[in-house]
Amino acid sequence: MAAAAPPPPPAPAPEPAMGPPESAPIGHPLFTRIRLATPTDVPFIHKLIRQMAVFERLTDLFEATEASLSSTLFNSPPFQSFTIFVLELSYNPLRPIYSPSFTPHERVVNFDLPITDPEKNAFISDPVNEIVVAGFVLFFPNYSTFLAKPGFYVEDLFVRECYRRKGFGKMLLSAVAKQAVKMGYGRVEWVVLDWNVNAIKFYEQMGAKILQEWRICRLTGEALQAYDHVNI
Amino acid sequence: MAAAAPPPPPAPAPEPAMGPPESAPIGHPLFTRIRLATPTDVPFIHKLIRQMAVFERLTDLFEATEASLSSTLFNSPPFQSFTIFVLELSYNPLRPIYSPSFTPHERVVNFDLPITDPEKNAFISDPVNEIVVAGFVLFFPNYSTFLAKPGFYVEDLFVRECYRRKGFGKMLLSAVAKQAVKMGYGRVEWVVLDWNVNAIKFYEQMGAKILQEWRICRLTGEALQAYDHVNI
Repeated sequence: MAAAAPPPPPAPAPEPAMGPPESAPIGHPLFTRIRLATPTDVPFIHKLIRQMAVFERLTDLFEATEASLSSTLFNSPPFQSFTIFVLELSYNPLRPIYSPSFTPHERVVNFDLPITDPEKNAFISDPVNEIVVAGFVLFFPNYSTFLAKPGFYVEDLFVRECYRRKGFGKMLLSAVAKQAVKMGYGRVEWVVLDWNVNAIKFYEQMGAKILQEWRICRLTGEALQAYDHVNI
Repeated sequence: MAAAAPPPPPAPAPEPAMGPPESAPIGHPLFTRIRLATPTDVPFIHKLIRQMAVFERLTDLFEATEASLSSTLFNSPPFQSFTIFVLELSYNPLRPIYSPSFTPHERVVNFDLPITDPEKNAFISDPVNEIVVAGFVLFFPNYSTFLAKPGFYVEDLFVRECYRRKGFGKMLLSAVAKQAVKMGYGRVEWVVLDWNVNAIKFYEQMGAKILQEWRICRLTGEALQAYDHVNI
């Protein structure tokens, strides 16, 4: 089983592309697509976020419902506010889809064996063509005053368990980076837990620097609500 | 000289309000206003960002020009994208200004002695009423998938040197927190350098938690540009 991952610039790829050329897929070609999410993807996104909360052992912080996601997402044109790419996979060739704001990235990845997806039924986005949603990345613009340029902040990057360690996370993050360059943006940023050495290594191989000195400050819950009564 | 700062919830105020009641200002009352910035504030904002770069010894990262700020800010309605509050001060009473999206916060702060502002001429926003710009805060929406709610991320908070340690930084940050609560948002977040113990103490007194385990990952410069050539 080999993941055909794009070589991450500028560091060498941790996973060498061991599959045959894309032009002549053999074995079990998996047709992949990264596209903009739409409101009809909310049930998938909700389930993916819940899985992420379980994975991070943070289910006590999980409050999202399909309704609350629907009411807070998709209120602005893509890239101007909260934006989601979903990763779709199928063993059948994908029919091209048209999106005025973003041309989907399509790629064929070859595997020696098919991937068993125990959750397939819960993540089918197109039953006719047997397309499943395998992961997502949620990002939104941030701003650097020093650069006087926007950037993108990646809030979440998640790939379902059976599709991990195959280069899909890199594909999703690379799609955000490529979009940032296309828009003339200056940075792509996200956060990582300091003890997650595998993730840090992966991000460094993708060209990211880890800022060791900065700490996040968070005002939330009752401490935030108290400001409702403060006279500025 | 006493700063009349609002008590930060839920911790006790580090600076007790030593001035007389606002209804009967004596000494040297300073009329303060926090309002939305407009494109005409760009020259002030540019100078303030430059001062911040000098203060942080990061002038090598400073690339902003008035033109680049003008072209990247004020392109969306307030609070939907990059948003700036400016702090204005005057020893003369402020005439009310009308803003459809944000009612300015006004407050009278009493000082035993007037504050000498050596940069006054460079920061006069209203020569008739002798109003100066003393600081700013730049923030924009972020998003928590676990909460399924937006929040605000504070990119910059800056008060000019002669006006520091008087509660103005707290006023600006509190204005962002109050706006977040008003909009039903779930969090206000920002970053601090881990060795800046005074800032950390100040933020904790304002009710913020410092997240010790998370590190920021940044993809920028040539490492980001390289993604222009990557096939996803």
